[in-house]
Amino acid sequence: MNPVPQERLPVLGLMLGDAAGVGPEICARILADRRMVDAAQLVVIGDARVLEQGARDAAVSIAFIAYGAPEDIDWTRPEIALIDLHNLDPGSIPRAAVSPESGRICGETLAYIIRLALQGRLEGIVFAPLNKAALHGGGFDFHDEHQMFAHLTAHRSAFGEMNVIDGLWFSRVTSHVSLREALDQISIERIDQALTLADRTMRGAGLDSPRIAVAALNPHGGENGLFGREEIEIIAPAVAQAARRGIGCRGPFPADTVFLKAFAGEYDGVLSMYHDQGQIATKLKGFQRGVTVTAGLKIPFATPAHGTAFDIVGKGIAATGALEQAVRLCARLSASARINSGRSEAAAPIPIGS
Amino acid sequence: MNPVPQERLPVLGLMLGDAAGVGPEICARILADRRMVDAAQLVVIGDARVLEQGARDAAVSIAFIAYGAPEDIDWTRPEIALIDLHNLDPGSIPRAAVSPESGRICGETLAYIIRLALQGRLEGIVFAPLNKAALHGGGFDFHDEHQMFAHLTAHRSAFGEMNVIDGLWFSRVTSHVSLREALDQISIERIDQALTLADRTMRGAGLDSPRIAVAALNPHGGENGLFGREEIEIIAPAVAQAARRGIGCRGPFPADTVFLKAFAGEYDGVLSMYHDQGQIATKLKGFQRGVTVTAGLKIPFATPAHGTAFDIVGKGIAATGALEQAVRLCARLSASARINSGRSEAAAPIPIGS
Repeated sequence: MNPVPQERLPVLGLMLGDAAGVGPEICARILADRRMVDAAQLVVIGDARVLEQGARDAAVSIAFIAYGAPEDIDWTRPEIALIDLHNLDPGSIPRAAVSPESGRICGETLAYIIRLALQGRLEGIVFAPLNKAALHGGGFDFHDEHQMFAHLTAHRSAFGEMNVIDGLWFSRVTSHVSLREALDQISIERIDQALTLADRTMRGAGLDSPRIAVAALNPHGGENGLFGREEIEIIAPAVAQAARRGIGCRGPFPADTVFLKAFAGEYDGVLSMYHDQGQIATKLKGFQRGVTVTAGLKIPFATPAHGTAFDIVGKGIAATGALEQAVRLCARLSASARINSGRSEAAAPIPIGS
Repeated sequence: MNPVPQERLPVLGLMLGDAAGVGPEICARILADRRMVDAAQLVVIGDARVLEQGARDAAVSIAFIAYGAPEDIDWTRPEIALIDLHNLDPGSIPRAAVSPESGRICGETLAYIIRLALQGRLEGIVFAPLNKAALHGGGFDFHDEHQMFAHLTAHRSAFGEMNVIDGLWFSRVTSHVSLREALDQISIERIDQALTLADRTMRGAGLDSPRIAVAALNPHGGENGLFGREEIEIIAPAVAQAARRGIGCRGPFPADTVFLKAFAGEYDGVLSMYHDQGQIATKLKGFQRGVTVTAGLKIPFATPAHGTAFDIVGKGIAATGALEQAVRLCARLSASARINSGRSEAAAPIPIGS
């Protein structure tokens, strides 16, 4: 075994997801046969008993070594690297159901992993599906996980969700607010921020010059002001401003054709004005197969776009494709973050904090 | 040849569409081989020279007989029935381009056909693709053709566009207005009207008990009021009210999953709250293959959902499927309108007006 290539791979924390859902079993499956060793150095951070239950559900046999900290891990070993938080007995929560206790442990585990990453001891975080109702019940009362991560990383500037499907990147200017509030929030500044975030994240994932199509807000793109003036007064000026700064954006395009353009390969991504605009399109395209990324935070976060899939928990049939894509994408984002921050294993070891 | 079954079929006026587009050639193609004779008695109303140009473009040979009025037509003859308005020399307008002159003639031809239908001399109207910019330039300055038809039929109550794709029916509560104005227009009354219109039209097309899914307005359907209260205060009460009157409607469902439900066969149609909600989904589903119906007017109107397709005009490659579906759908709607109004060929001849 040659340790050199592996040492160059980013160290990613893998969180097993809500223990009541399919997370543990899909994690166990991709770890058991070491299929991700070309992409990342994965360390599972959670409860060993949950990982073991996942292995039983997936009908795979696993071997792991528990370490006290990421920097203790011997990456030349074939066993799964685990930091055992010993914080959840999976027998103590219901399976395939919303569990506030499981949600509470999820939040605490993520907070622990985030602290390690903020200390530079992990380079990215991949997490299996969470359950929002469980998180809320467990005291982590955020509109979405991205807001939770922004809070836990004390992030102050722009950030946002991006969905990646078949190599196409989808993001939005407004998100979990009423449609009326979304209309009030849309501004040149916000669109510019969202384009900057999308461009930077897509470059971070390896696209040399991302081509971003921007959706209009009104029917037929406002039809030259006949059905609304936001395209003329807000969206077009914002696109022009970002383009002048070198971002490869075009638009606004009518929302009912912009996704067809992207799916046909004319663009690498689409910026939507509001939640459902993008979600209607991506759900029809096969959202479940995709990956969700939290863009703009100092730590790369990636997760499968699908949920806890309570209907198939424990059956060993949950697909692993989206989780694998999440690992690969997080690894690329981590590697580019490392380059951009001037760090490299050769130049400086990952600092150990506490 | 047995004339009896044909006499039972509805008499539909066929308008060739904008002569600069693919309309004439797709009309010529479906008329040349008489493929619609099982569905309707079609009479072309327009200029014979435009029909002839369409036949040349489609590389089909046609024979037609020009009549002075629908009631003069000998439906036992195999030739195409034509009422020659002699109002447009196709050599006088540019091909594959927006032509105000062609738009003006389109509007006048439609007005003529509508008068015949209002007099009871036609039972439905099928039209090949129009060009909105040409219509505007030609003096028919309506937001869409449905408003033009409502105007020309002096219609006063509710009406609306419905899109039919693969047997699924899509309609909306608001249409060609800005998104902000759409939010202001959404009311219990309007949703109830739209559900009534959809239910009646779908029944008219032969569905015994249409199942209609109603889309929510806000992300995640408002998440119990967290992201907007329209679902709680407007949409749910409207759905309940319509359901009490016997309409098979359910909802509101989050907009990013409601179309998946319909496409999976759980519903026969979806009522959207605003234009792009439905159009994003239907364009991805294959809107171009579908049919657009004007619901609520006293005359059934149907047209292919695709446009004038200037990029392929004259090449003889334009697909005819959507036009054929439009004829079949219009025939079904006409037949049910005839039954509902108590008319039938056996009981009373179609009255002849002037």
